[in-house]
Formats: sequence, C-alpha cells, structure tokens
Amino acid sequence: MERRLAYAMVGGGKGSFIGPIHRMAIRMDDLADLVDGCYTHADDWRAMLERAKGRADFVAVCTPNDSHHEIAKAALESGFDVMCEKPLSLTLAEAEELGTIAERGGRKLGIPFTYSGFPMVKAARDLVASGELGAICKVVLEYQQGSFRKIDLTKPLDKRNKWKMDPTKSGPSCVVADIGVHGFHLIEYVTGLEVKSLLADLSSFAPGNRLDDDASILMRLGDGGAKASMVVSKVATGEENGVRLRVYGDKASLFWNQESPNYLSVKYPFAPERIYKRKAPYMLDVSEPSVAFTRVPAGHHEGFIEAFANIYREFCAAVRDRGEHDYPGAREGVRTMRMVEAALASNAAGNTWVEVRG
Amino acid sequence: MERRLAYAMVGGGKGSFIGPIHRMAIRMDDLADLVDGCYTHADDWRAMLERAKGRADFVAVCTPNDSHHEIAKAALESGFDVMCEKPLSLTLAEAEELGTIAERGGRKLGIPFTYSGFPMVKAARDLVASGELGAICKVVLEYQQGSFRKIDLTKPLDKRNKWKMDPTKSGPSCVVADIGVHGFHLIEYVTGLEVKSLLADLSSFAPGNRLDDDASILMRLGDGGAKASMVVSKVATGEENGVRLRVYGDKASLFWNQESPNYLSVKYPFAPERIYKRKAPYMLDVSEPSVAFTRVPAGHHEGFIEAFANIYREFCAAVRDRGEHDYPGAREGVRTMRMVEAALASNAAGNTWVEVRG
Amino acid sequence: MERRLAYAMVGGGKGSFIGPIHRMAIRMDDLADLVDGCYTHADDWRAMLERAKGRADFVAVCTPNDSHHEIAKAALESGFDVMCEKPLSLTLAEAEELGTIAERGGRKLGIPFTYSGFPMVKAARDLVASGELGAICKVVLEYQQGSFRKIDLTKPLDKRNKWKMDPTKSGPSCVVADIGVHGFHLIEYVTGLEVKSLLADLSSFAPGNRLDDDASILMRLGDGGAKASMVVSKVATGEENGVRLRVYGDKASLFWNQESPNYLSVKYPFAPERIYKRKAPYMLDVSEPSVAFTRVPAGHHEGFIEAFANIYREFCAAVRDRGEHDYPGAREGVRTMRMVEAALASNAAGNTWVEVRG
Amino acid sequence: MERRLAYAMVGGGKGSFIGPIHRMAIRMDDLADLVDGCYTHADDWRAMLERAKGRADFVAVCTPNDSHHEIAKAALESGFDVMCEKPLSLTLAEAEELGTIAERGGRKLGIPFTYSGFPMVKAARDLVASGELGAICKVVLEYQQGSFRKIDLTKPLDKRNKWKMDPTKSGPSCVVADIGVHGFHLIEYVTGLEVKSLLADLSSFAPGNRLDDDASILMRLGDGGAKASMVVSKVATGEENGVRLRVYGDKASLFWNQESPNYLSVKYPFAPERIYKRKAPYMLDVSEPSVAFTRVPAGHHEGFIEAFANIYREFCAAVRDRGEHDYPGAREGVRTMRMVEAALASNAAGNTWVEVRG
Repeated sequence: MERRLAYAMVGGGKGSFIGPIHRMAIRMDDLADLVDGCYTHADDWRAMLERAKGRADFVAVCTPNDSHHEIAKAALESGFDVMCEKPLSLTLAEAEELGTIAERGGRKLGIPFTYSGFPMVKAARDLVASGELGAICKVVLEYQQGSFRKIDLTKPLDKRNKWKMDPTKSGPSCVVADIGVHGFHLIEYVTGLEVKSLLADLSSFAPGNRLDDDASILMRLGDGGAKASMVVSKVATGEENGVRLRVYGDKASLFWNQESPNYLSVKYPFAPERIYKRKAPYMLDVSEPSVAFTRVPAGHHEGFIEAFANIYREFCAAVRDRGEHDYPGAREGVRTMRMVEAALASNAAGNTWVEVRG
Repeated sequence: MERRLAYAMVGGGKGSFIGPIHRMAIRMDDLADLVDGCYTHADDWRAMLERAKGRADFVAVCTPNDSHHEIAKAALESGFDVMCEKPLSLTLAEAEELGTIAERGGRKLGIPFTYSGFPMVKAARDLVASGELGAICKVVLEYQQGSFRKIDLTKPLDKRNKWKMDPTKSGPSCVVADIGVHGFHLIEYVTGLEVKSLLADLSSFAPGNRLDDDASILMRLGDGGAKASMVVSKVATGEENGVRLRVYGDKASLFWNQESPNYLSVKYPFAPERIYKRKAPYMLDVSEPSVAFTRVPAGHHEGFIEAFANIYREFCAAVRDRGEHDYPGAREGVRTMRMVEAALASNAAGNTWVEVRG
Repeated sequence: MERRLAYAMVGGGKGSFIGPIHRMAIRMDDLADLVDGCYTHADDWRAMLERAKGRADFVAVCTPNDSHHEIAKAALESGFDVMCEKPLSLTLAEAEELGTIAERGGRKLGIPFTYSGFPMVKAARDLVASGELGAICKVVLEYQQGSFRKIDLTKPLDKRNKWKMDPTKSGPSCVVADIGVHGFHLIEYVTGLEVKSLLADLSSFAPGNRLDDDASILMRLGDGGAKASMVVSKVATGEENGVRLRVYGDKASLFWNQESPNYLSVKYPFAPERIYKRKAPYMLDVSEPSVAFTRVPAGHHEGFIEAFANIYREFCAAVRDRGEHDYPGAREGVRTMRMVEAALASNAAGNTWVEVRG
Repeated sequence: MERRLAYAMVGGGKGSFIGPIHRMAIRMDDLADLVDGCYTHADDWRAMLERAKGRADFVAVCTPNDSHHEIAKAALESGFDVMCEKPLSLTLAEAEELGTIAERGGRKLGIPFTYSGFPMVKAARDLVASGELGAICKVVLEYQQGSFRKIDLTKPLDKRNKWKMDPTKSGPSCVVADIGVHGFHLIEYVTGLEVKSLLADLSSFAPGNRLDDDASILMRLGDGGAKASMVVSKVATGEENGVRLRVYGDKASLFWNQESPNYLSVKYPFAPERIYKRKAPYMLDVSEPSVAFTRVPAGHHEGFIEAFANIYREFCAAVRDRGEHDYPGAREGVRTMRMVEAALASNAAGNTWVEVRG
C-alpha cells in the first residue's frame, strides 16, 4: 500500500467554495491527512507553514488570487510541494518565478485545472492522439457562466463576486484569468497543440465591473494551421457552468460538455455518431486512463469532485515518487498566464494578433 | 463539530464494486473511520465483530445477498448499528426478523437504496408533497440494465454475475430483488404512496439463467386509485444503468433520469416545461433538502458517490443522535422484500394481483 | 412521369386536425388532386360519393370514429380505394367486414398509422430484420399524451375531446383505440413479430370520462418468448406526443423517440452507442427505404407531414399499380381492432391474459 | 379564399437539392401553380421568362450563385416578383442593383433565409422584442457543416461541391456567402439589432479549396455595445447542419438548435430553465406568429419544408396584396452581401475591424 501523505491548507475556510472541494477530493482516495491549516486569517499563514515543516508533504493554497503567488512562493521555498488554485498569480512574471523556484528546488507545483481530470476529457485527448480525428483544424470552446447576472444590484456585493471584480484582488483580468484559463488548458490538453498567438476582444458588461467579464478569443494552434475560437463569459445569463468543447479533425470531430461529463460524442462523415461512455467495456481500447481514472461502474455518474480527486491522485503520486504524472503543473500555470497577458495586450491594442510564447 | 464515528466492514474487498463505494461515501464527509474489516474470508467475520465491540459504532455489510441476514443479525445483536446492502435478505421472513431485532434493540438499520440520496430525487419528493403535481395518478418507472448481455458465453461466468444468477447466493429472485427493489423504493419515496398490490410478469432471458432477469410489474398505489407500471431488466442490451422515473399528477408531471441526475424536468399543461437544476438559487424555495444534500456549486456535477454519501450522512446522524433521519431503513428493507415476495407469487400464479402488505 | 390521381374527402373540414394533414401530405409529392369533398354535413356524403364516381380514384375518410365503418364500406362498395382514419371501426366485426369487402372487391384500404411512415422507423424495422439486434426479447413502448389534462373543467368540453370521451362516437375504447393502436402497430411493424396475447389494465382518470384514458398492456410476441410492455395515456399531464419505442435484442437495442424523429439510437454491449441520422450517407447500407422516404438533406429536419406523405406515397403507388406497398392496410386495421377488443376483454375479466388472433 | 398564384422556376431541376424544396414548400399551402420552368439548360431561361409573361406571378431562381444576379435582374425587369436563392449575387454591387431595380419597379424580391421561417425562431425574436431577455449583450452563433469532409479525394468532385469551391461559380466567398449569410440573418432577425462592424478570420482547410470554408467572425451590434461571435464551417467533420443560436440578455438567455427545431430554451438567473414548445397553448401569449406559422399540433414535429413554406406563405401574401410581410427580402439580401464583403475585406487586411454599412 502507498504511503499516506500529509498536507496543510491556506485559505478555503468558511464560505469558501473551493476549500471543501480540495478536502473532499483528497479524502476520496484517502490520499493524505490534513494536518494543519490557516483558513481565515491571512496574516498567520507564515507561522502555519513553519509549524507544518516536517509534518506536511504539501500545501494546498485556496486563497483569493492576489495571495496565490506570495503563499505558493513561501511554501515552495520552505520545501513543500504545492497545489495552488488558479490563476497561479496576478501576473505572468510571478507565475514564471514560481515555475523557476519549483524547478530549481525540485518541488512539485500543481494547479487544479479540474476539467482535464474528467475521464472523458482524458479519453478525448487519447482519441486525438491516436489519430482517430485526423489532423485537427478547428477547436470551438465555450465556457459560459451567468454568475455576474445573479448579483442583486440593490445589495452590497457578496464576498466572492466582490473580489472577482476587484483588480487589487483579482489582478488585471477577471473572466479570462478566472475561467478562460480553464478553457485554454482544455484546448491544449485535448489537442496536444500549443496556442501560438491569439486575438482577444474583451468586454465588461456587468454593471459596476471594470474588469473583463466576457471574452471572444481567436487562436492559432501548432504548426499546421489549426485555429480555435473560444468564448468565455460570466454574464451568460442563466448558464451555470457551460463548458462545451468541440474539436474538428479532418477525419472526425468530438464534443464534450461538462454538464453531461460522463459522455463523449464522436462524429464521422461516413459513420453514425458514437457516444463513448465512461468506463464502458470498449473504453479500455480507446483510452486506458479514462478507465483508470474512474471509481464507479459505467452508468453510475461521476462529477466534479471525482475529477478533482483525479488531479490530486496524480499530484500525490508525484509527491511520493518525485516523477512526472498527469496533472496540470508549473508549465500549465505559466502557459495560462501567458495567455492571459496576451489577451489583455491584444484587447488593449484594438484586437490585434499577439504571440503566446512557448 | 460532530463526533467522528468508527465503523467496521464485512465483505467489500478486492473485486467488489460496492465496498469501495461505501468507503468513499463515508470519507466524503469525513463521517467515520474504518477501524476493522473482514473483506474476503467469510468465515472469520464473527471474530471481527467481537474485536470491533467498543471500537466501532456501526458495521457495513457488503457481502453477496445470501449472507446479509446472518451477518446483519449478528451485528445488530452485538449492539452495532448496521448499514446492510440490499436486498436485506433472501426472504421476507428474514427481513422482518432483522427489522424486529433492530427495533427491539434500539439499533439503527440502514439500506443504501442510493437513488433516494440524489438531491434531485429529494426535490422530486418535495415537489410531489407540495402539491405541485396535484393528485398522482400514474407512475412509469424503468430500470434497464444490460449486464447479463455483457457475458461472454464461451467463458466461465465472472464472479459477480455468477452469484447473481445462483439461487443459493441470490435467493429466489434476481432482477426484482437486485434492482427492482431500487425502483420500488424510488416510487414509494417520491410519491409518498404505498404500493397496495401488484401483478408481475417475470422472464429469464439470459442463456443459462434460471432466475428472473426481466420483469414487468403493474401496481396499485395508495387509496386514490393511482397506478404504476415498472419495467426492470438485466437483459436490456446496451443499457448501462437506465433508471428513468416519470410521475404524472393531475396538475403536472415530473421526469428524473439517473443518467443525467442533476436535473429534474417538470411539465405542465399550460406552461413551458421547467428544468430544475441541482443547487440553483430557486431550489431553496422548491426543496431545501435538495440544496442541503449537495457539495458542489450549481453546474458542477455530482453523481453516485455523492448520493451514497447522502445516505450515509443521514444514517450517521441517526447513529449519533439516535433520532429519525432521511435514509432508507428497516421499514424500507422490509417493504421491498414484501414486494419481491408478492412479485414471485404473482408470477407463479400466472400474473395475478397479489397484495403487498403495509 | 406517374399518372396524377384524384381523390375525394369525407370529413376533415373546418376545425379538423387531421383533414388538413391529409391534404398537405397528398400535396407534398403532388400525388393527387382533390376533386370533391363533403367536409361538414355528414348527411350528404353518399351524394358526394355518387358524384365522384369516375372522377376520383380514392376517398379519404377523416370523420370521427363512429362513421368510419359506414363511409368506408360505402366507398369501397362504390369501387373506390379508401384511406380511412384510425381506428378503422368501432368494433372488430366491422373492421373485419371492411377487410373482407376490400379484398373481395380488389380495393386498396389504407389506414394512416403515421409513425411507420417515419424514415427512422423504417430504419429501425430494417435493423431488426437484418439481425443487428439479434433475437428480440423485450419491447417497451410509451405513448404519453396529456390532452385530457388540458381540459378546462369549468367550460363545456371542446368538440374534439367531447367525441373522444363519448362512447357513442368513439366506441367502447378511448385511449387504446385512439393511440394504443399506433403503439401496437409500431411494435409489430418494427419487430416483425405478431402479438399473440395480452393483459391489459385500463383506467379512467380524467374527470367525467367513462372510457379508458390510461392503459398498461403486457404482451407476448411471436413464438420465441418475446414480451412487450406498453403504456398509453391521455392523462400524462404535460406530455405532448411522447411516443418512445425501445426494442431489446440479445445483441443490441434501439430507441426511437417521436419528439426527435430524425434520429435512431442503437446501443451495444461492447461498442459505443450509435446515433443513426436520417439520410446520412451510411444509411443506404442500413436501410434503403429510410433514405428513399426522405425529401430534405441530412441535418434538415422532417416531421409529421412528411411521414404522413410517406404513407400516402405508398398507398397511391398501390392505387396506381394495384400491387403491394409499404403502408398500413386492411390487415393492420383488423389487427389493431383485435388488440382493442382483447384489451377491453382482459380488463373486464380482471386483467387476465387474452389471445389476440392472427 | 385567396387567389391561387402561378410561378415559373429557373434551375432546380434533376439533382438539385433546393429546387424540389421550393416546389414542395409552395405546394404545402397550395399557394401557387408551377406553370413553366427552365430546369437544366441555362441558355433558354430568357425564352421561358418571355413565355411566362402574363401567366406567372413570380419566378423562383434556384440556379448556382453565379447566375442569380443576371436571372433575377431579368425577371424583375420583366415585371415578375422574384424569389431568389441566396446569396443574392456574387458581389455587393450586384445585390444593391437588384434591390434598386425591385424597389423602383415595385417588385417583390424574396430570399429564402429559411431559418427565420421556423416558428420557434419567430418566438425567439418575439421574446427578445418583448424584453423578456432584457438588454442583449452577447450572441453566439455556430453554423457547423461537414460537407467538405464528405468528399472522396480519389474521385472527381461531385457537381454540387465543385461549384461551391469554384470562384467563377460561387464568387469570392464560399462558406461565408453560402451559410454565413444564414447565421448573420438569424442574428439580426432574432435580436432586432444591426451588425455595425465585424472582424473576420477565414480559412481554407479542405484539400484543393481556394475559397473560405471556415470562418470565425466577431461582430459589434446596435448602439448598446452588444457583441456577437459567429463560427461557420464546411469542414466541421461529422456535423450535418449544426445551426446553434445563443442570445444572452441581462435578464435571461435563449438557445435554439436547428437540429431540434420545435423547441426553444430560455434560461434565467433565478428561475428554472423553460422549454418552450411549438404550438403549445402558452405560446399564444409568447408569440402569436410562432403559432400562426405552424400546421401540425404540438408534439408532432415540423421541419425544414414547413419553415420554407412559411417564407413562401409570407412572400405570396406580399405578391397578392403588394404589402409588407415577414419574409427576408431585398434589404436582407443586400445586408448579407455587405457582411460578406466586409468579412472578405477584414480577412484580407489581417483580421481588422471593418464597418458593415446600414
């Protein structure tokens, strides 16, 4: 049996959405024990890190965006592996610094871009890699949320929306940094292609919001001329968490919808559409990982916590064996911040093409 | 903070589908620690129970059907609360005995009829109870599985299908006792009506199977003339776990589909169909429990383990406070076995109406 | 080019739902000209038939149920081919008489059981016939309508619901004769199996209705032990026209839903679910008729009028060439009335098995 | 009863997809008789027009794109009203000329942008106009086809794809002019907003194709800051005719999918999603036209031909009464060509913003 790990948490206390998710995800596979935490008072997390030395293997950072960099940096420098909420930092420079620190110190740095933890997203990636879709020419990704349309304008903003709209807490981008990074990661993860450049058109539609809450981003991928069109929004009224990914190759296309996450549709020009289903017997031939990363039988649904637990399963494997595993790490944290900065630059320049460095 | 409980497990070891689910469900809310177990050797579970006395609050029974009664009985008589897999026993008499033992000893007995743990099933129940659907006249329930069509007839039966088809392990019924009980429980849970009588037509379609693997069951519910039509099958080729519930009242109807469990459709004669969604803001007005029994935000999916954890959350609350909570218990275990016996009797008599005692 | 036919219509005038459908369906392929009609005054249809002799090839009968037999009989005896609305008559004896008259006189008699006119229903039939599903063991058919829940009880009944609830107009059965016949026809058409016996449980749920408005019917099909469960209702509140057909074989199963009629799902134990789509290139290999009976390209939807036009296309071919074609005729009219009488008899006898003669 | 019209057709003969659709659509409501036609030999259509004078009220032009302008011009100048297939011409200047000729001559000019003929698209328009969605901020439109992925590269191109890829037949744009115009029209029709400017990124992915076969187009709408993101493609492998429209307002959003055209989803921040259904009783309060433009009852599907017939119903009303009716006309023909030219200009200039004149 594998060694049980120990971890400490910063942030993620009362009222937090994501803190409990981290804890449930870690418990699901009984990966690690929570040995210390600093859930509410941001001022004493340094003392907590000190206490946790020798007792915790890794630190989970679940605070608002503006403290990600500082806390993650301190934790890495204290010798902890770190799972840090996205976006990794407010600026690209900070993300790059974290990446460098982790690499130099031999520390593991994970970022829970949860969607690549879904079994059928892994199946999508493996189908693309196997050549089933042929050469990829186009990706269409929507990430539609209506959270900024649930705000009662006659009342003070709730805590969560408040910091998301606040540049001092959120950094220079809201929707692109908050959920655009998920979309971007999904595109690169599934296609295996790097985004080379982008053209972004950002908007601020929610009353009182000065940051971007809606974005249309065109992208160029890889060296073969592939393109992507990504729409992300927090003002998509009535949408809950509409992550919809369509990948078009010259032989077939695929569609995955986070709101029905256990299925993956593949369409062919000359054959019936196929609905691949999580953990069905034939999935072993299509994508072994899509089967390995499930916990309940076919037909019995898995959701967000299970996907999150998959990220942690791989991260904890890396913490134990110090090897490479299938979780979003420093590279993905830096890549997504490069995208954020490119999007802001493109928008500021009147929607021009901006390079996304490799 | 609530007291952390301790439990022991019988069965549920290597190769078991349901054992790991129990353990993950319990861990999800960090309800109890597993302190002892007897996972594989059925012969020494009595010793384990002895060891666990004073150390475990409850025992989870995850063995094949034929040992449910014996183990649950011993555990109850040893003073443990018990969560026992369904069906509670091979015969109605045994189920009734367990109910009596639990009641007399003041022990809690839970049965994980998981589907009533889904938030949107609770919402369905609350919508019916609120009168939103008016007087219920008809229920249509399908529980379609194709598991007996995944058998390779040229090879020996796998362990799990083997005992399901074996009367000495499964008892006198296969599909009705195995999944028909889920359907029956769903119908009574959501409508709040008792099934008074039924007429069952059972079949054995799978090659080599002597027990029922397909059933059509007509039912009369409550005192107002309501009826139900239930179809359950293990030979529904290609179906994974097709639990589909339709409840028709004189004002509206509802539809819940386990394969898309976070949604609940309600249809009206003079208004657009409404899609209720787990944890959406308006759900608080519709069904507080449907919100209380969730862990992730609207739009982020929950599935089988979460529903299972909801059953355990209520069971553990009862273990702690010795009160009544919203989980299927001895009554449901006995009711479902009454249904199984009535179905077998009806079929044996040429598909006649048979009473299901209260 | 094929000879253009001429037809006369009885019934189907102002306020009729089905009359305009017949006329549009006939016009769609420009099959026949309407040369005479008696749309509203039931008393002079005999005169109209007299006038139409030599001018019309066939007569379309679109009156309420109670006059189907009399008008169809007169038309057949006057030498016309006849397309008569379902149910063919109020009693089985009348239906059999019409069948005999048509046969002796060499007249064509069509009944628009529209659903077998849908291209993807023809594909379903052809898939079953090809052995793709293996041996059929179970059919589950729902035909759920909520029309009797749209009645405002504080007002006089509208004309259409009034005659549907009136035994002198509708005959001894309402829901079984009105839509149960569609379900029954679909089952026999798609499976190619004859229903041998049935057990019916009928209800009258709508206030003031003395006829059946909800039915659960169990059936035995063919000689291989196949079974069906059919639920039909006019009190399925909020449902529009919920015709859902599931056919389970030992190799695969299929699902067709009238509310998404251009698609056909086929599920396999060891392969992904396939969604067959009307007129897609691969459909030629699956079912030539499913392609021949379409008018618009794949992806552009066809609906009820097109399916109706398919029935007429085949009927008119028979009118022209006097041969056999793929439309529901006298045999289907008689078979469905045998089912209706068996269902009434079974229900009257306390839900016993009743033979459906061949 | 309304006067029956007469029409002549140019193009639309053997092998044509769209010619038979025109004829069936016109017949559906028995609007007009086809009195003359020139289906195959492009050289004698002038003689046909001469013959039809005094006998035909309007001319339907169903030829490939490159002859639309010449034939429509001649027909208008001969005093006919004209229904001309889209795109109206190869260039904007030609479209403008046709608009001017029609206006000066008092002739009706219709363009069958079929999708605005769907009842639920009219309902969408009326919901937006009623303020139900609040102020529109974002539109997301996909029109995904895979037709250029159905080409067998080892064989000569089939006739239809050949002319679509041929600049001398199709004009300077393929996908934008062929289906982008549908998407553009849908956006303006449903939102009631004019596209003011756009930024287009065009691609040629199909082997051998020199024209655009995939496009991502960003748009600015109206004066309130609304934006749209449109993706249109002929290389969306496996897609049939994926027209998906999402409109986001600050109070609600709507979704219409051509592949399930009888439904319209509306999502709210604080209320369950509503599924509006064609011709349901409540639709009269939402959109009278959505009810008036249907032919079969709720629950019985309508499709492409019916939508096409709705365009013709309005066009023929205009032909008869010389008034304004709800069909796409000269204005829409010119607007869509302005969009095409702007898209080509934007792409040529490196994806810059280009004005779309009013």
